[in-house]
Amino acid sequence: MDGEGRRIAFGSRCHYCQSSPVFRHYAARITERLAERYAGHPALAMWHIGNEYIGFGCHCDASVTHFRRWLADRYGTVEALNDAWGTAFWGQRYDSFDHVGTPAARSRTVSGPNPGQLLDFARFSDAAALECYRAERDIVRRHTPELPVTTNFMGSFKHLDYWRWAAEEDVVTLDVYPGPQDQEGPLLAACNFDLMRSLRGGKPWLVLESATGRNLTDVRNHARPAGQLRPRSLQAVARGADSVMFFQWRASRAGAERFHSAMVPHGGTRTRTWREVTTLGKDVARLAELSGGVRDRADVAVVLDWESWWALEGPDHPANDLRFTDRLLDHYRPLWDANIAVDFVRPHSDLSAYRLLVVPNLYLVDDAGADNITEYVRAGGHLLMSYFSGIVDEHDRVRSGGHPGAFRDLLGIEIDEFAPLRPGETCGLRHAGHTGTAVEWQDVIDLAGAEALAAYTDGELKGGPAVTRHRFGTGTATYLGTSPDRETLRRLVLDCVTGAGVTPAPATPEGVEAVRRRAADGTEHLFLLNHTTDEVTVDLGSGLSQPVDLLADDPQIAATGRLRLPPYGVAVVRDVPRNQP
Amino acid sequence: MDGEGRRIAFGSRCHYCQSSPVFRHYAARITERLAERYAGHPALAMWHIGNEYIGFGCHCDASVTHFRRWLADRYGTVEALNDAWGTAFWGQRYDSFDHVGTPAARSRTVSGPNPGQLLDFARFSDAAALECYRAERDIVRRHTPELPVTTNFMGSFKHLDYWRWAAEEDVVTLDVYPGPQDQEGPLLAACNFDLMRSLRGGKPWLVLESATGRNLTDVRNHARPAGQLRPRSLQAVARGADSVMFFQWRASRAGAERFHSAMVPHGGTRTRTWREVTTLGKDVARLAELSGGVRDRADVAVVLDWESWWALEGPDHPANDLRFTDRLLDHYRPLWDANIAVDFVRPHSDLSAYRLLVVPNLYLVDDAGADNITEYVRAGGHLLMSYFSGIVDEHDRVRSGGHPGAFRDLLGIEIDEFAPLRPGETCGLRHAGHTGTAVEWQDVIDLAGAEALAAYTDGELKGGPAVTRHRFGTGTATYLGTSPDRETLRRLVLDCVTGAGVTPAPATPEGVEAVRRRAADGTEHLFLLNHTTDEVTVDLGSGLSQPVDLLADDPQIAATGRLRLPPYGVAVVRDVPRNQP
Amino acid sequence: MDGEGRRIAFGSRCHYCQSSPVFRHYAARITERLAERYAGHPALAMWHIGNEYIGFGCHCDASVTHFRRWLADRYGTVEALNDAWGTAFWGQRYDSFDHVGTPAARSRTVSGPNPGQLLDFARFSDAAALECYRAERDIVRRHTPELPVTTNFMGSFKHLDYWRWAAEEDVVTLDVYPGPQDQEGPLLAACNFDLMRSLRGGKPWLVLESATGRNLTDVRNHARPAGQLRPRSLQAVARGADSVMFFQWRASRAGAERFHSAMVPHGGTRTRTWREVTTLGKDVARLAELSGGVRDRADVAVVLDWESWWALEGPDHPANDLRFTDRLLDHYRPLWDANIAVDFVRPHSDLSAYRLLVVPNLYLVDDAGADNITEYVRAGGHLLMSYFSGIVDEHDRVRSGGHPGAFRDLLGIEIDEFAPLRPGETCGLRHAGHTGTAVEWQDVIDLAGAEALAAYTDGELKGGPAVTRHRFGTGTATYLGTSPDRETLRRLVLDCVTGAGVTPAPATPEGVEAVRRRAADGTEHLFLLNHTTDEVTVDLGSGLSQPVDLLADDPQIAATGRLRLPPYGVAVVRDVPRNQP
Repeated sequence: MDGEGRRIAFGSRCHYCQSSPVFRHYAARITERLAERYAGHPALAMWHIGNEYIGFGCHCDASVTHFRRWLADRYGTVEALNDAWGTAFWGQRYDSFDHVGTPAARSRTVSGPNPGQLLDFARFSDAAALECYRAERDIVRRHTPELPVTTNFMGSFKHLDYWRWAAEEDVVTLDVYPGPQDQEGPLLAACNFDLMRSLRGGKPWLVLESATGRNLTDVRNHARPAGQLRPRSLQAVARGADSVMFFQWRASRAGAERFHSAMVPHGGTRTRTWREVTTLGKDVARLAELSGGVRDRADVAVVLDWESWWALEGPDHPANDLRFTDRLLDHYRPLWDANIAVDFVRPHSDLSAYRLLVVPNLYLVDDAGADNITEYVRAGGHLLMSYFSGIVDEHDRVRSGGHPGAFRDLLGIEIDEFAPLRPGETCGLRHAGHTGTAVEWQDVIDLAGAEALAAYTDGELKGGPAVTRHRFGTGTATYLGTSPDRETLRRLVLDCVTGAGVTPAPATPEGVEAVRRRAADGTEHLFLLNHTTDEVTVDLGSGLSQPVDLLADDPQIAATGRLRLPPYGVAVVRDVPRNQP
Repeated sequence: MDGEGRRIAFGSRCHYCQSSPVFRHYAARITERLAERYAGHPALAMWHIGNEYIGFGCHCDASVTHFRRWLADRYGTVEALNDAWGTAFWGQRYDSFDHVGTPAARSRTVSGPNPGQLLDFARFSDAAALECYRAERDIVRRHTPELPVTTNFMGSFKHLDYWRWAAEEDVVTLDVYPGPQDQEGPLLAACNFDLMRSLRGGKPWLVLESATGRNLTDVRNHARPAGQLRPRSLQAVARGADSVMFFQWRASRAGAERFHSAMVPHGGTRTRTWREVTTLGKDVARLAELSGGVRDRADVAVVLDWESWWALEGPDHPANDLRFTDRLLDHYRPLWDANIAVDFVRPHSDLSAYRLLVVPNLYLVDDAGADNITEYVRAGGHLLMSYFSGIVDEHDRVRSGGHPGAFRDLLGIEIDEFAPLRPGETCGLRHAGHTGTAVEWQDVIDLAGAEALAAYTDGELKGGPAVTRHRFGTGTATYLGTSPDRETLRRLVLDCVTGAGVTPAPATPEGVEAVRRRAADGTEHLFLLNHTTDEVTVDLGSGLSQPVDLLADDPQIAATGRLRLPPYGVAVVRDVPRNQP
Repeated sequence: MDGEGRRIAFGSRCHYCQSSPVFRHYAARITERLAERYAGHPALAMWHIGNEYIGFGCHCDASVTHFRRWLADRYGTVEALNDAWGTAFWGQRYDSFDHVGTPAARSRTVSGPNPGQLLDFARFSDAAALECYRAERDIVRRHTPELPVTTNFMGSFKHLDYWRWAAEEDVVTLDVYPGPQDQEGPLLAACNFDLMRSLRGGKPWLVLESATGRNLTDVRNHARPAGQLRPRSLQAVARGADSVMFFQWRASRAGAERFHSAMVPHGGTRTRTWREVTTLGKDVARLAELSGGVRDRADVAVVLDWESWWALEGPDHPANDLRFTDRLLDHYRPLWDANIAVDFVRPHSDLSAYRLLVVPNLYLVDDAGADNITEYVRAGGHLLMSYFSGIVDEHDRVRSGGHPGAFRDLLGIEIDEFAPLRPGETCGLRHAGHTGTAVEWQDVIDLAGAEALAAYTDGELKGGPAVTRHRFGTGTATYLGTSPDRETLRRLVLDCVTGAGVTPAPATPEGVEAVRRRAADGTEHLFLLNHTTDEVTVDLGSGLSQPVDLLADDPQIAATGRLRLPPYGVAVVRDVPRNQP
């Protein structure tokens, strides 16, 4: 049942309530029977539980009961809940957990819902889905303790905290569906691939589903251009995947996905798609030596915290259209463009090995997370943090005393007013001789130890600081008080990269991605992926001992160290010295 | 109850469930009483059952029960239903008809609904409405077997298959409401008028409702400009109507349509509207000799199939904003512009008398329909078919082996990929020295016997075929793989017209419509309708024996054969030789 | 329960049904306890009942029952209701009040709802809210008969007829929240302030809530620019308020309004906001002599009638996007720009003291209201009325005989057709040598005694009257048949102002507001409010006896009579001769 009180209907998919005891009973029974039947079957290599869990926030009676129990477990007393949610405001105080409901959809509240209730319902819905996964996992493990268990993730998917989910899996698996015409498809995919690798500390992961061609997600769904399948697929291997798999083998004649692409299209094996799929199979076989192994930790880490994401996109903020993944990509893009390897981390992760920590819009952070980041900088780490960070505690309660409450001392600034720009409005800003523009947000920053790194050139805050830097302990904390244009943000990010002592990789032509992957035996491989429809030449530099392109029929690379990539071409070069990309 | 589970409320109109036994019981009782009372009444000339049936797809319990019974009648076994709908996909298999529901609104399904279920629900909702009509018709027929029975159609209205409805009527009647300011009003009306005439093989039909002026359908509803009523009304007579009637006689003071126009407006009989209505009455009296008679079959037929329409506009397609009536009008417009008479037909109609068959986007077709079209061409017919035709069978299941499954041999092409253009995106194409643009759709066409008639001039498919032609049997099959701009499509359609040996009627000035109608006694009449606010002159050509303008006070037409039409003027010329428009 | 049948949920606010006997029982009990407890408390100065009543139109069973009782009281017999609502149309006749429901949301009616039912439901929902207020007011009055009682209004808020509410209050209080970045904020506020003052005949009123800075109403919610708080707050005092109060004292850490501005922000008392609030407190203390007193009647009155507003914005009109407050502001703006004082009145008010009566779009008016306005003009009053006025009676039934039924004789015109312009469409019009443009609406006007004051310069009605004037009795009635651009409307309104003998106040620079307020002792004060970020100079003219700026540290105004206002500056000048602004 959704937040409007509408019961989800049978006839599509995902028509189940994850809190329903009846659903759980029969799901367990089916799992038990399947495990009994297939345990010991020679073709059984791995268990895949469920499909694309979505953490559907159900509002039926069973879900309400389950939510109350979850809250009672979390808070112990209803007074603790009242305090966490601030129910004194608007007369929402509860006398009993039995009076608490799930947060209704906006259409069923005259004003906005309680932010604490919303946040806890997001946590609960995630937790209830994970319980479903665990229950089925435990059953198959009992039958086949030797086999790995997984469920397929959907990249930076909002409703599930994959940090918690990955810890319950034996291997991380991903469904990846950037559209064939999405200009930023390779960027989005790279970001998701890095996340998958990071979720279990660099271990190999698997592409469980991708599309040979057309998705059905848009109004108009284009075929995949000839040749594009190769770089899009091998990009995953470059970033740590040990497989490339597709949904679906043969195109379905009927059902909702009858026009979704497949390995064998409606036209059969005489089609271009089938030819490209078989070629890809041969490519992967040539890369067998890469399988396994754990990726080195990168020099740069980016914080992705699901609870902060949920709270950031909650209602009643100074700006109500902030989208976390947009801001995340803003920060990831210049690193990807410069072929700089990135790991994802949480606020509580061990940060000591990283030279630079990038923290996009970490609205919510608890004291432990804030302390961890603060101590990282004090001990010499370099931080780049952007606006509306450190504002609230773990209950979405504003940290008193001025913003950004959790990081005021660390950043050496005080913010009393937020001055978001109107949709479409821009403001000029100047940084190190470069003039750019800013959108969406402006903090009114008072310097309290920090220095201004960039200043506004017009508008209400003209001359005021847009970007600041603070020496803190033996590290530095750089703060972005607005959302700059791409070129300006690129300069700021690379300034931090340089300041942190991260050596940028040599540049590749635009649209050409260079990624290093280390094999289980420690050998380095450089993936060069041409995402464009132009032929390009990449300079590998000198000093290569015995470079070999694993995908080429004639694998020896000419003494020039220059590599030609045809449109959509890929090369995988073994034996690259460390000072190369 | 709608697909979101909301019960439709009393207080407006159409608040009935067409599957409700209670509703049907009382509807029958009222009908019985009315028929008893008025049978034999001297003013009773015809029965009009219901009003603007809409085939509301109800989702209440009674409707669900009725739908199950309808499915059981259609499929016999639940296995046949599972096979037709492809329920194996997404785990939707049914064990009993008692488990099947109506397809919920998109808001109540997490992913899309089953396409087969959607299509059958459209068929069922149409059938249930027709049952209601038939039940009442049978009652009044019992009382007055000598009187005709009808219900008012709404032109190219999506939810009712008027081919099936017209077969149950004694006379076809139409409600027609193009807005006074709609630039394409005359085109839309002409298309609907031709459809009405075609539904019963060219027999005369009636305008049951039209507006003297303002509708209430838009945000801003303009009055009808002075004089426009005349050509808009007589246009229906030109295309086979034997009446022009209006809703409403006197404007209602209260109720939802108190600002809808009327024959007698709120201002009474001193108004311009009343004067124009009375003038029109005199015009119609002058045309009495035209009443009755059956229109000749036209040389050109256009396929309009409701089941294909329903399926085409279903979800989860390569392009999800295709609108059948837009594409239909694209093909009808150039024929109308050139004053070429058109009949509408179904895929299963007897096509032998037509020189050219136009088939816009016939996504769904069963084997019999596909065979009928194929044999038409083989026997010498000329075909113009457009993209996304022949793709699925009658259950919306993709025809295997490559697209367009039903017409691959006929068209001499193979299509493995659809490459729809993005909204707003255009692509150049070149045909016979003319360069135009295309939007919405592109097929990736492999020629397999056909020749390219037009090719793309840029984009991913540059140089590839956009339009093809195939000699098949003794006919030709022309295929449009995209949606060209109006001028290009006009050239392509007229190329087919010429190729099929259809003589285009002489041109009239833009906005002036020329239509021939044959009276019951075989006399030919030429309607000339000036839809513009300019005075125009039409050249009737030489060779007229004794031309007379039935509407003129001095009906003799000057020897010059030239006729002057004032703004919004109309002439009805008797005795026009066959080689005139 | 809303009109879609969704029950409003607990967890936000306003989750009550104003017709529920259970709610009313407990609301009364709580009120009784509070009154018992605080009666006689030294800090108790006034009772504030409820908070921002919204007149929520509830659709639950209790509300349906209540609505039926209310209708039975209003109409006596169900036949009277059938007649008022015109239920004969579309077969909606009721046999009993027990069959009548509340009007469902548009999503639950296939066509539009009954206009009479909609209008009565708006009246009923307003009345039910007022019953709730009165019940609680009566309880506290019993305990503390000496103390005033109020509830906070929301300016020109659609759902409550504040004329009726104000009559039940001891003092009018207002919540006012124009956004800091709203360019028209001061205009909107002035209009609402004048309305508050008018609701009880010029008596002082109170600002009960306003914002020191950020609201949370928009997608992006900007901080208040430095200094803007002062003129925005003192503007209320200028227009008759005896207080400036804020929501909220200290910013809440949790809850939906945790980012709403406060007197003490999250940053505490070191913030700019706190400093501006304390300065404002000192300003208000300096204006103590102004407290109390009743404002003179203005020379110009504007009609604001809630019932007509409700009906105007109902469905199924020739133009369905008319917004009453937009048109109201169109007429108020030029008066405000020219510093002309305005009162608001109802159609039934005593109008005799006014020189000019402005009537924007009074769609609905009963006979008594129409007669009152007609007699006002006959007796020498000057009227400016705009289109779609006088069309329907109090039941939303069209007045027969031609439009505008209630004012045809008064205006000396006849209108049989409305010709609204399409969204985005404009038409030229010419008035007294000035050429402007019109949008939204055009009446097709036949002169029947009136003369044309402005005519259309193009389009279908080219040369026809756009604005008319009719000498009637000893007064004049000017009629606007369209919606002119701002400059044209300014000229037309000022033409009426001049014709009515209203002396325009001397001009102030753009964005600078001049308002006179009379103290209880009869002394005149001139408020000068600079809403801009520029320094400006205002010429007070000569002839001032002893001008003093109450807010200045050095209150004497230089002999020049010129006053300098810094950005966002305010001056309150005592002793201004009557011929000054």
